[in-house]
Amino acid sequence: MTLETPAPTAESSLEADMLAMGRRARAASRTLALAGADARTKAIKGMASALRGRSKEVLAANAADLDDARAKGMADAMMDRLALDEKRLAGVVGALESIAAIPDPVGVETARWTPENGLDIARVRTPLGVLAIIYESRPNVTADAAALAVRAGNAVILRGGSECLRSNLAIHEALVEGLTSAGLSPDTVQIVTTRDRAAVGQILTGLDGSIDLLIPRGGRSLVERVKNEARVAVLGHLEGVNHVYVHASADPDMARAVAVNAKMRRVSVCGAAETLLIDKAVADDLLPRIAADLTGAGCELRADPAARALIPGAAAANDDDWATEYLKPILAVKVVDGMDEALDHVARYGSGHTESIVASDEAAIERFLAEADAGIVLANASTQFADGGEFGFGGEIGISTDRLHARGPVGAEQLTSFKYVVRGKGQTRP
Amino acid sequence: MTLETPAPTAESSLEADMLAMGRRARAASRTLALAGADARTKAIKGMASALRGRSKEVLAANAADLDDARAKGMADAMMDRLALDEKRLAGVVGALESIAAIPDPVGVETARWTPENGLDIARVRTPLGVLAIIYESRPNVTADAAALAVRAGNAVILRGGSECLRSNLAIHEALVEGLTSAGLSPDTVQIVTTRDRAAVGQILTGLDGSIDLLIPRGGRSLVERVKNEARVAVLGHLEGVNHVYVHASADPDMARAVAVNAKMRRVSVCGAAETLLIDKAVADDLLPRIAADLTGAGCELRADPAARALIPGAAAANDDDWATEYLKPILAVKVVDGMDEALDHVARYGSGHTESIVASDEAAIERFLAEADAGIVLANASTQFADGGEFGFGGEIGISTDRLHARGPVGAEQLTSFKYVVRGKGQTRP
Repeated sequence: MTLETPAPTAESSLEADMLAMGRRARAASRTLALAGADARTKAIKGMASALRGRSKEVLAANAADLDDARAKGMADAMMDRLALDEKRLAGVVGALESIAAIPDPVGVETARWTPENGLDIARVRTPLGVLAIIYESRPNVTADAAALAVRAGNAVILRGGSECLRSNLAIHEALVEGLTSAGLSPDTVQIVTTRDRAAVGQILTGLDGSIDLLIPRGGRSLVERVKNEARVAVLGHLEGVNHVYVHASADPDMARAVAVNAKMRRVSVCGAAETLLIDKAVADDLLPRIAADLTGAGCELRADPAARALIPGAAAANDDDWATEYLKPILAVKVVDGMDEALDHVARYGSGHTESIVASDEAAIERFLAEADAGIVLANASTQFADGGEFGFGGEIGISTDRLHARGPVGAEQLTSFKYVVRGKGQTRP
Repeated sequence: MTLETPAPTAESSLEADMLAMGRRARAASRTLALAGADARTKAIKGMASALRGRSKEVLAANAADLDDARAKGMADAMMDRLALDEKRLAGVVGALESIAAIPDPVGVETARWTPENGLDIARVRTPLGVLAIIYESRPNVTADAAALAVRAGNAVILRGGSECLRSNLAIHEALVEGLTSAGLSPDTVQIVTTRDRAAVGQILTGLDGSIDLLIPRGGRSLVERVKNEARVAVLGHLEGVNHVYVHASADPDMARAVAVNAKMRRVSVCGAAETLLIDKAVADDLLPRIAADLTGAGCELRADPAARALIPGAAAANDDDWATEYLKPILAVKVVDGMDEALDHVARYGSGHTESIVASDEAAIERFLAEADAGIVLANASTQFADGGEFGFGGEIGISTDRLHARGPVGAEQLTSFKYVVRGKGQTRP
């Protein structure tokens, strides 16, 4: 009797391909970790210049993606997220150059001490290993996520949206040119080339231990699917239901400027404010003025009864409004009776992303900063500063709302792990 | 038509109870975070003295647990893990006093800087929130895990093994006495009182967002069940397949002392060495002597062919032996041809827990420390130092083999998260 190997099916082929991709990434991560900061810097600079040199090809690939999207009837707002032009591409090149200039976090000693047993112990940063980034739209993610990963010594597997596959592949070629120019393996940054949706399911398994961290970038349903199905660690980037609390001691002009900027500078970023809380003590005078600024800038207001009494044009807010991340020019507004009520509201409805107070009273500032539980808490500044670039990280892969590992803007430093390096003189333990 | 509420079932009662426990823990975590370092210190000292004061009751409860275990025919080794006596209890009290002396990590600023936008940004430690500890045997875990959690400002839910339920409940009473003596809520440390195994399944759901981190302490099947089923973050504490690599440049006496201590000081701790790798260049002379030391101490050796030629009494090792964490007086032994082979073996079979080299050549030491990928890498010291107390952490909740959040010994500092605290002067973003 002869045993026959079953003919490979499409599924088993995809699985085999993905597992092999994982193994290549793991192998590449080992050599990347030991390649040294200079090689990594050179690779990222090489990525930037290769992208500049290939801008014609990238824009042509993007034009083809856009043609297909148009033919399929994609909405303009969605198409805008896929579209690249000379200016946007120059922005991506600039982002890569910034990332190349970030200090290399690998090998940095973050602590060193000698306990009673006489051992010399150091805590040293190491790469995480292999990252997998699953993203939608925005082809620039292909470049900046890959560069941040490599800066921190990680190999990366990219799986972008099918609607920009050509654009992503063209950008990937530039990234590989950068890697090889620095003597690094092309497998350091791999891109999933199949449109087959089953590839995502494969990645979510962790590829047999090849993946250390999954990073979903995109809409809520993508992030939730990944969080629910993934068998490996996921960097959580959920909602930004962010508050601006105008305290009784707020400078009125500052409150107006900060509130408007926090909502309206860019309404679709995760750092945009979604609810304004204003102290009863100053609402009579100040709320109508802030409201006029906001509606003048095109914002729709949804207010609680006390606020509506002061801004008659505002619609009535319901319970859902307090918990909603609009990502649109809509702001929920509530009058609160002091700090306790403001903090309770933030604790109940905030998503742990970004919370802010405008106040001049130091004690009120310090209390809010201590008690508001979010990755970023600000006093007297716009929530729109919730951004890795603004924090001086040189870039970010997203803003984490998790409490473990990384919280707030995730830059290269947060894409690392650490090890304890212990130097002894022959000590044994009694 | 009247709608009838379904009669509560046993399962829905347990679920309701567990969800309520989660809500109480969440509420307690909020007040604990703001209670201040002194209150937390006072509580832990109070726990220690209450435990000392209640030692009769705790030992009586333990005796009752042991009677039941004996009647059920439990093996002696297992009973030893449940058993408390005056000396062990004094050890637990001492551990609590050490934990009370650990510097409070909450509110500590770990970085502060001002980027170009002029914002004053600080990274500040915060508690994780609510921890849930699922553990087997060892009633001391009830006390020291709870104390470490509270030191870092976290509320905690404890679910120990049914076989020590009485012991754990008695210890819990002492812990609550300590909490209330410092003005803290008794809900800060809650214990699951039902023997119903379904309670664990409930905890694994995360109790509707009440739990931030799950910590399993126990055997492999418990840890794997938790990792596979949990819907919330789990602190991974898997195997310690730890190596001692005796390099060609090793001091022979040091190699003998370190190898024996690493294996035989305590064979059942996760930091015990499980495989000895010895350089071909020194094996002829040194391996027989190390082997004699080990067998003299009661260790069984399983060796590769090259090692067996030098230690004829050793059994033959098979492939499984290289990947096995024996937790017994058994050691796998292999002769390697230099650093490359040693590092490849460690990369292939190590579990990322603890790896060590004995060498006098500085370059060899630095290469091993850089390239061996584990939470703890040691040169010229026993792997048995893989311990939070030895690291100066004052205690540990376990040793993590994860790459995210915490790696190596997990002390109070690792049971924290952080927030970015941003102080502005009214900055808005262009």
